[in-house]
Amino acid sequence: MTLSVTISEVGPRDGLQSVDRVMPTEAKKAWIKAEAEAGVSEIEVGSFVPPSLLPQMADTAEIVAFAKTIEGLDVVALIPNLRGAENAIKVGVDKMSIPFSMSETHSVKNVRKDHPAMLAEIRAIAELVAEQPEGQRPHFEVGLSTAFGCTIEGPVAEDQIVRLAEAAMEAGVAECGLSDTTGYANPAQVTRLVRKVKAAIGSDNLNTLHLHNTRGLGLANVIAGLEEGITTFDASLGGLGGCPFAPGASGNIVTEDLVFMLEAMGIHTGIDLEKLLKVRDIVAGALPGEPIYGFTPDAGLPLGFERAAA
Amino acid sequence: MTLSVTISEVGPRDGLQSVDRVMPTEAKKAWIKAEAEAGVSEIEVGSFVPPSLLPQMADTAEIVAFAKTIEGLDVVALIPNLRGAENAIKVGVDKMSIPFSMSETHSVKNVRKDHPAMLAEIRAIAELVAEQPEGQRPHFEVGLSTAFGCTIEGPVAEDQIVRLAEAAMEAGVAECGLSDTTGYANPAQVTRLVRKVKAAIGSDNLNTLHLHNTRGLGLANVIAGLEEGITTFDASLGGLGGCPFAPGASGNIVTEDLVFMLEAMGIHTGIDLEKLLKVRDIVAGALPGEPIYGFTPDAGLPLGFERAAA
Repeated sequence: MTLSVTISEVGPRDGLQSVDRVMPTEAKKAWIKAEAEAGVSEIEVGSFVPPSLLPQMADTAEIVAFAKTIEGLDVVALIPNLRGAENAIKVGVDKMSIPFSMSETHSVKNVRKDHPAMLAEIRAIAELVAEQPEGQRPHFEVGLSTAFGCTIEGPVAEDQIVRLAEAAMEAGVAECGLSDTTGYANPAQVTRLVRKVKAAIGSDNLNTLHLHNTRGLGLANVIAGLEEGITTFDASLGGLGGCPFAPGASGNIVTEDLVFMLEAMGIHTGIDLEKLLKVRDIVAGALPGEPIYGFTPDAGLPLGFERAAA
Repeated sequence: MTLSVTISEVGPRDGLQSVDRVMPTEAKKAWIKAEAEAGVSEIEVGSFVPPSLLPQMADTAEIVAFAKTIEGLDVVALIPNLRGAENAIKVGVDKMSIPFSMSETHSVKNVRKDHPAMLAEIRAIAELVAEQPEGQRPHFEVGLSTAFGCTIEGPVAEDQIVRLAEAAMEAGVAECGLSDTTGYANPAQVTRLVRKVKAAIGSDNLNTLHLHNTRGLGLANVIAGLEEGITTFDASLGGLGGCPFAPGASGNIVTEDLVFMLEAMGIHTGIDLEKLLKVRDIVAGALPGEPIYGFTPDAGLPLGFERAAA
């Protein structure tokens, strides 16, 4: 098992886009800055989607520009299409991620593109990236979403996921990640699917899991992923963006609980948990009335808790 | 990894003893009956402690007598000492469990016995069990409590736990279980401690984990236990008996979420999840105002969910 893991904070993107209220730009900046200071080295800061669709993400270009001034921080943005990629490249993101829904029904419903159309879009973006001058090419990865099941189709055939991951690599992405968009994943499935996709596209080309805690299995799924060599886990501060205690809940795994688990296990995250816990105040203050979750923040650290050695 | 697991429901004991309100005897019976009908094959129905200490457990003898009429159900009771064992044997429990705190400070504070005094008590109980006519001897096990850390002492030395587990076996218990009384455990620690104790007392003599979800790691710890050959997990319906979202929270892992995880993984529990979910109404109805937890109950089952094959 790996002794060092990257936690990619997705709260400012996946969290905020699920919250109706629009977080003020200055609060987003304060959040990102404080989390980077707590040792978080990668943050998905926004999404290059039309503001008419997601007003919460309207300031993404400004947020990226700000985040890029923070030394040592990898600045990630979600892009839905070529247009989004152009905008992301313009402001110089370090990493772009495009969601590619393994359920074709979901893909058509969500972005009005079937699988061939998505692959054409991914290829066009990869070409755009390749055209950029060296040193200015963002890392471009695809998130294989609904990989663990779809709320419309139900289970998605694993062979189909393997085939689409291979096609995405062939279309020119730098790597693939697996996303449990629906909170359907279980640890045995994580083990099986990570193995199959790694075997198909190469072990170094699948490094990231994006997990939700909808049915309480988020951290159990992390354990399964760790054992298969996954080195990056997405998580959201305070589990923002989904109410785990309401029907249809869809919150990301909670960054604070993930950091606690990994550090307690002796797995280095580079994150100072006590500093991280203080970041909750910024988020709570900027989104009054919005529930902020986390078991570890409520229970506190165990007596005698020690961080993993660097 | 095992393909079949026993879930031991501890809500009527560990859950109820943490709730101030006393559940009416008839409601306890209805709960136990309904859970057995959902396929739960082992239930810890009460504790043989003085009613002055735990009025919630005053009807334990009556509850045991009732539970014994349910075919196929293993009826477990907690006993704190020899006196409790005498009472448990009198009503014919199938299994008795004595908590043995690995933190001596906690043991002295909790039951006013240091480790040698506890071992003497355990030996006396084992002798009492051995004196019973064949066919009437309950299975007698010790729960190594605070094994993953103590709120007073902090970490407990693993060598000490190994030594005390050996001493308990030597004193005559049938097997040992490991209990994360304080919700301090992490998966790496579960792996390490289960291996060490199994190596010391024999692999077949450590089969049970008692986990809490205080810091959200309960199901992740189950995964670690499964991989080390643990075959019985304690859990509490609705996570009863601890508020996971309040300081000092101490709730057991939620039976419903555990069953969902295992069945989704293809691990047979014998439990019908849809029937189990309906049992919540009995508990909620008998304890108005008491919070009942669970992610899976709130989110519902995934589309296309299938139980593990028997």
